Amino acid sequence: MKYTYFFGGKHAEGDATMRELLGGKGANLAEMARIGLPVPAGFTITTEVCQFDFDSDDLPTALVEQVEQSLKQVEETMGTTFGDPSNPLLLSIRSGARTSMPGMMDTVLNLGLNEEIAKGFAETTGNPRFVYDCYRRLIQMYGDVVLEIKPEEHEINPFEALLEAKKKATGATVDLELSAEALQELIAEYKALVLERHGQPFPDDPKTQLWGAIRAVFRSWNNDRAFTYRALNGIPDHWGTAVNVQAMVYGNRNERCGTGVGFTRDPAMGEARLYGEFLMNAQGEDVVAGIRTPQPLTEHERERRQKHAQSLEAQSPTLFGQMLDIQKTLEEHFGDMQDFEFTIEEDKLWLLQTRTGKRNGLAAVRIAVEMVEEGRITPQEALQRIHPEQHFGQLLQPVFDREERQKAIDAGRILATGLPAGPGAATGNLYFSANEAERRAKQGEAVILARIETSPEDIKGIAVSAGILTARGGATSHAALVARQMGKVCVAGCEAIEIDYAQKQMKVGEHVFKAGDAISLDGFEGLVLQGHISTQASEVAQVLLEKTLPIEDAPLCQLYNKVMTWANEYTTLDVKCNADRPEQVKTAIALGAKGVGLCRTEHMFFEGTRIDLVREMILAQQPEDRQRALDQLQPHQEEDFRGIFEAMQGHPVTIRLLDPPLHEFVPSLESIDENPVYAQTLADHIHMDLDELKHQIEQLQEFNPMLGHRGCRLLLSYPEITKTQTAAIVRAACEVEKSGTPVQPKIMVPLVSMPGELETIREHIEATAQPILEEYGSQMSIEIGSMLETPRACLTAGSVAAHADFFSFGTNDLTQMTYGFSRDDSGRYIDDYQKIGLLKNNPFQVLDQQGVGALMKLACENGRAANNTIDLGICGEHGGEPSSVHFCHGIGLHSVSCSPFRVPIAILAAAQANLKTNA
Amino acid sequence: MKYTYFFGGKHAEGDATMRELLGGKGANLAEMARIGLPVPAGFTITTEVCQFDFDSDDLPTALVEQVEQSLKQVEETMGTTFGDPSNPLLLSIRSGARTSMPGMMDTVLNLGLNEEIAKGFAETTGNPRFVYDCYRRLIQMYGDVVLEIKPEEHEINPFEALLEAKKKATGATVDLELSAEALQELIAEYKALVLERHGQPFPDDPKTQLWGAIRAVFRSWNNDRAFTYRALNGIPDHWGTAVNVQAMVYGNRNERCGTGVGFTRDPAMGEARLYGEFLMNAQGEDVVAGIRTPQPLTEHERERRQKHAQSLEAQSPTLFGQMLDIQKTLEEHFGDMQDFEFTIEEDKLWLLQTRTGKRNGLAAVRIAVEMVEEGRITPQEALQRIHPEQHFGQLLQPVFDREERQKAIDAGRILATGLPAGPGAATGNLYFSANEAERRAKQGEAVILARIETSPEDIKGIAVSAGILTARGGATSHAALVARQMGKVCVAGCEAIEIDYAQKQMKVGEHVFKAGDAISLDGFEGLVLQGHISTQASEVAQVLLEKTLPIEDAPLCQLYNKVMTWANEYTTLDVKCNADRPEQVKTAIALGAKGVGLCRTEHMFFEGTRIDLVREMILAQQPEDRQRALDQLQPHQEEDFRGIFEAMQGHPVTIRLLDPPLHEFVPSLESIDENPVYAQTLADHIHMDLDELKHQIEQLQEFNPMLGHRGCRLLLSYPEITKTQTAAIVRAACEVEKSGTPVQPKIMVPLVSMPGELETIREHIEATAQPILEEYGSQMSIEIGSMLETPRACLTAGSVAAHADFFSFGTNDLTQMTYGFSRDDSGRYIDDYQKIGLLKNNPFQVLDQQGVGALMKLACENGRAANNTIDLGICGEHGGEPSSVHFCHGIGLHSVSCSPFRVPIAILAAAQANLKTNA
Repeated sequence: MKYTYFFGGKHAEGDATMRELLGGKGANLAEMARIGLPVPAGFTITTEVCQFDFDSDDLPTALVEQVEQSLKQVEETMGTTFGDPSNPLLLSIRSGARTSMPGMMDTVLNLGLNEEIAKGFAETTGNPRFVYDCYRRLIQMYGDVVLEIKPEEHEINPFEALLEAKKKATGATVDLELSAEALQELIAEYKALVLERHGQPFPDDPKTQLWGAIRAVFRSWNNDRAFTYRALNGIPDHWGTAVNVQAMVYGNRNERCGTGVGFTRDPAMGEARLYGEFLMNAQGEDVVAGIRTPQPLTEHERERRQKHAQSLEAQSPTLFGQMLDIQKTLEEHFGDMQDFEFTIEEDKLWLLQTRTGKRNGLAAVRIAVEMVEEGRITPQEALQRIHPEQHFGQLLQPVFDREERQKAIDAGRILATGLPAGPGAATGNLYFSANEAERRAKQGEAVILARIETSPEDIKGIAVSAGILTARGGATSHAALVARQMGKVCVAGCEAIEIDYAQKQMKVGEHVFKAGDAISLDGFEGLVLQGHISTQASEVAQVLLEKTLPIEDAPLCQLYNKVMTWANEYTTLDVKCNADRPEQVKTAIALGAKGVGLCRTEHMFFEGTRIDLVREMILAQQPEDRQRALDQLQPHQEEDFRGIFEAMQGHPVTIRLLDPPLHEFVPSLESIDENPVYAQTLADHIHMDLDELKHQIEQLQEFNPMLGHRGCRLLLSYPEITKTQTAAIVRAACEVEKSGTPVQPKIMVPLVSMPGELETIREHIEATAQPILEEYGSQMSIEIGSMLETPRACLTAGSVAAHADFFSFGTNDLTQMTYGFSRDDSGRYIDDYQKIGLLKNNPFQVLDQQGVGALMKLACENGRAANNTIDLGICGEHGGEPSSVHFCHGIGLHSVSCSPFRVPIAILAAAQANLKTNA
Repeated sequence: MKYTYFFGGKHAEGDATMRELLGGKGANLAEMARIGLPVPAGFTITTEVCQFDFDSDDLPTALVEQVEQSLKQVEETMGTTFGDPSNPLLLSIRSGARTSMPGMMDTVLNLGLNEEIAKGFAETTGNPRFVYDCYRRLIQMYGDVVLEIKPEEHEINPFEALLEAKKKATGATVDLELSAEALQELIAEYKALVLERHGQPFPDDPKTQLWGAIRAVFRSWNNDRAFTYRALNGIPDHWGTAVNVQAMVYGNRNERCGTGVGFTRDPAMGEARLYGEFLMNAQGEDVVAGIRTPQPLTEHERERRQKHAQSLEAQSPTLFGQMLDIQKTLEEHFGDMQDFEFTIEEDKLWLLQTRTGKRNGLAAVRIAVEMVEEGRITPQEALQRIHPEQHFGQLLQPVFDREERQKAIDAGRILATGLPAGPGAATGNLYFSANEAERRAKQGEAVILARIETSPEDIKGIAVSAGILTARGGATSHAALVARQMGKVCVAGCEAIEIDYAQKQMKVGEHVFKAGDAISLDGFEGLVLQGHISTQASEVAQVLLEKTLPIEDAPLCQLYNKVMTWANEYTTLDVKCNADRPEQVKTAIALGAKGVGLCRTEHMFFEGTRIDLVREMILAQQPEDRQRALDQLQPHQEEDFRGIFEAMQGHPVTIRLLDPPLHEFVPSLESIDENPVYAQTLADHIHMDLDELKHQIEQLQEFNPMLGHRGCRLLLSYPEITKTQTAAIVRAACEVEKSGTPVQPKIMVPLVSMPGELETIREHIEATAQPILEEYGSQMSIEIGSMLETPRACLTAGSVAAHADFFSFGTNDLTQMTYGFSRDDSGRYIDDYQKIGLLKNNPFQVLDQQGVGALMKLACENGRAANNTIDLGICGEHGGEPSSVHFCHGIGLHSVSCSPFRVPIAILAAAQANLKTNA
């Protein structure tokens, strides 16, 4: 059995394909050696040894000999000898799992020193300060990682404490100012500390050090940090880590040495130019510690950041030349933007690691597109490199002026942190009621609407606001949902904020903010910032929606268009939109939607004076009063639907009949008391007195409205609602068809839990639609289907399918009922669960495949078996979330539907799912 | 293909086994003919013809000839001829499905008359009044059933109108007083009506009449009544009905003729003696119409009811003798209590129908037991004839004095009707608060507690009340659940009642009832009655629980004991109880329980001053304040658990950790304002000021508490609750074990939706339990398991099972989440659904096998596959409902758990399920 894999000197036993065995770092070190890049020689101990170690709590016997052999190869390659005082080989011992787990596991550097070797090495190099710096670093890291000398309660790291004391005693401000003598004293103090805490002296034998470090690095796979990281990132515990044993090169030898990090392209802006930073006379850990400010690699970067520190380009054209060669080799060989760690030793460049570089959205898109143009990758590959949400989504969001934002943060202007519920940037004046928001917006103010939580009554206020801030509610609360559908910036569930409607103010700790105060919301990160920060719309919006920017002047929109063209080519899922108004439909079409997957009719009920009619309809006790109100509502609804059908130009439009519990529409008892004139008018219209009106309002209250009298239950209690809504839909469709625009209406019945519900309502719909179609002489086919949003609908989908032309999974409600999580109340415990690692994702954001997904899969199978022409879709919030879109593709849905601004994200995710399936 | 089956004259082509083909009535008519009982000859047209009729909208060609042949056999047997004026055969045409569908389908009598035949028949019989009475009945029934002459809007039946007019014109008060001449005039008027409404004259040809009637009776299978009845009773639409064509015999010929209904045993009291009633000079429809009061069959009955009408026994010993023979033959032949319809014609008895007689609970039990004693049936058969709930359950309920109750009803004292949520009878004085109920009960008053709805705070008030009345809430509302668990009488959800707590009164329409007014509740039928009505405990309770009645003096309890002995012998499911207190456990054991399947710890929290500690625990913001309150609660809980373990004597006791949302325990904001002293004390204890206290209370409010921060979510947010409750359970168990009584504790984690929840809480439980067990040196094994009450827990049961020793299905919550029905709010729409036939049963009462059951089945399969020793049970309300118990047996559960007073019902249902499976 082979346990060690040597690399170094343009030769390696492993290669980049062997990630499982060698870990990502080991495989890439081998690969770099193979292709002739300057890698210090070393060897990788395989992940199998780690697994052996778990199982038997020991290392395989054969390992000792293989390590000896590989070590000999390293000595030969580097021309140094492990344990030789005159020319010692020192080693770094580092972990390396299949997947990068940054900072989770442990590392030991400078291994192989003791008093004697240090002395010899100091003589050979003539640089005792450097050698004793290495030695004290070794004792400190080894003491921590291998001997597990950790700070005790209320103690700071004891090695750090000694180092600080030494600096103080010698008047040094940074480590570099410690002399060789001071470092030797420090080493003695370190050793005394080890003896005291560990009970045994620091091991002098290099081999003892080596085996201790190997065991410790394997052990670090199971430390708490690593365990939690794996749980959160879905990395299996049985994978184990490899250990990389590698010859040290020294960035801390003198001022002609250094260490740094590079990227083959700019990870922030995506430009195809070298990017990175470095520190002279330092080891890797110093860059991370952030005590000194690093220098940029390029002159370009130095200029852009207006930094005064010299660039490598200016400082050493030779080294910079080597670095450009490396950049080119890495990109050509790995075919993607790479990051890499390097050490400069006496004008020679060494590579210590490379991997695919992380990048932000803009950079990801730009790199992918440009690499296609450069002929390096295919469009299919490019599509798969762009994360739909984290990358592509960034092209669609308004953004803060970067500098202004940073200044605000630096000035401590972050007031609170909430859920980043509607991405983007918004700035404006704070108001606490929808009415005031509307009034102020009319006067031209940019408004941030702050509510304890929002309700459908706030819709007009939300529509005119730049951003929404709520003190309660999660990422799928009303505020968040509406905000995303409207593309509004939203920070939700800011528990630190106390809003007082009566006083028109909010408190954050001791700060009090009054109506009209300036505030800004960062919907990418969920920050609430004091004061104004300038924003601007995304280029994509400026070009495609606002049409204020010509495409020629919009390089980002050009990138967007290229990606969308490719994505549409490789997508088999139709992406539709959740939209209630013609403007939303137009936005969605501009962004690529193929229809309306969910038109919520209830949102229309809040327009203008309609709400009064809706209230009359709901509160009426006499069927004739209810019918009169419905009759007056019908033309309004008809007009809305006409607008949507016209905007959709023949694409399917799926309209959901009335869904929410009725009490959401009626005024509260308090508002009745506050507005006696309004209340009296309302009561008069439906032939009641005020007491009866209040009694009716009280009757509508429910303990658990989510599980209450809503959806098809309402439609069955009040069939006249179905009839009026159907008439409005069908008349609108006929009118639009008559005007020459094709139409494809689909009527959707919400909250079905029994096949009979759909069967009965279908009869009501057909009985209403038929005469209208005859009146218009129309041959139009109207599909009738069911939302599947109760577990029972999924469990009995075979029977439901007998009455349905289509199914659309309403995964918001389905998630609520499958878990028993109220989405309005779950913020508190979902937070707790994420903290203790029980939940990786909020299931209202990322579809729960084990539970909710199992119901969907079952429903698809049974639905198709009963009705093989049934059309299957999803219209919950998950329809725009990439991993959920993948799942939907996998179970064979025909379409996903999401809010208009998520349409491009869903299209890209759908293309990726299809490419992955066919890969 | 054979379509007609003749019967008559001790001969028949069919028999009792042919229900599917001949319907129940036809099969039994054939059987009665075979065994020599006096049945008028006739024939049955099979259900296959009905199915043929549906499919082709026509009758099979071969039917005409077969009907002719069978008709000839009838003529030969009866000695009369169809259509012969001198000696006419008249026919009855009646429906008869496999299962009795009483009154749902149509019948035509006296078929085969026209003017000429009537004239001849009148001459032959010398009884024109009789013949013209038959003729006018024929036209009326035929007009209604075959010609479909129905009342128009706002019209009464037009035939009835003419009949009434004729009686008025001739001064007759009852039909019998109409002369032959008056009847002939009426017939002419009827015919004119037919011509006007039907457009064609009434058919004179007997054959035309016959075929019209046959088609009409088949058609009546699909009338609205029959359709709804089948939907509600789960009878398939494709079965179809048979048609029975039978020679008429005439109860309306003269005063020596009559018609009636008999039972071979008393269907109310179960006594083994003939029971029944009859009318002289009448046809069957007259008995139903209830215009004249029928006479009893026996002298015994005449005496018991103190009726003055003569009995058949006294009036005609010969006929009575024939009837006793028939009684004996029927019981011997059919092996069960039978009912039968008969006609007396000139001193001869004819049987028109027999079937298994419906009986009330007491009668069912008594008949079953006595038939075993008589050697007619086996105990297994007896068990299967007793409906666990409708029959056996009646033995367990306190009852009203029958006469007093009837008097109250006759006097119009029914105030309102609600859900019969807790069966039984209760009478007392009305109070509107739990505190006042308690105070009054202490003073010796019998109390009826009326609340808009009840909450856990009312528990002490409920405990002392004779009955509970609520204006809101369904059959599984808090009131109903607690009432059943405590065996309380309860009428719930009486929407007609308006309760005003401030005024301490309730209004029912115009009536106002004040605190202290007398009222009675009939929990069998859901009636609220004005004034007191005497009650008494069931005999079973008096013997087994109160021990106030010796078994020798308790014949009903003797019956109960016999049935329970047999049932226990044939049961494989363990029946446990849902019980929170030692008294409840003792009751359950006396009634046969094999353990506690669900002990809800939260009910204990309302005893004495504990609620104050609970409130401190909940509202505390400092962990140390919470821990202090928990520490003070622990000994109280320990004491409760000790009582339960002692009472259970080594049977398993399953204790559920804290489940409900915390806000259920805290005082409302209003009550804080009303009780400032109490509030201040509470706030002081947890180091808050009043504003902070109110803020905390507000924070606990949730939009959908059923889906909120409760169950294991609470236990994970506040692990100290788990620890304290575990410590109380384990200490109690150890103490009881130490005292020499065996214990079997099981700890149950509520509302799991993810395997990780159970895994984590299991660790907390084990970490707490271990040191206590060591302290006591106990080897006791403590099982830890999960309630399965979210759909997700069922869907992921395979993974949950890895951490569970047992599963217990919490079908109340599971039903809520599977349907998306809030059990607190669903009353309104479930009512609507039952009205329109969408739901047969309330799924909170009868387990929904298609939806909830499918999840349970899946969970059992996956749970067992992952952990083959896992113990499976159910502890939702369905655990005591017979059809649900059958289902649980079928999917392989090991136990069901229900409220103490339902234990015997569940045991009987479990025995039946087992017998049925092994049949």
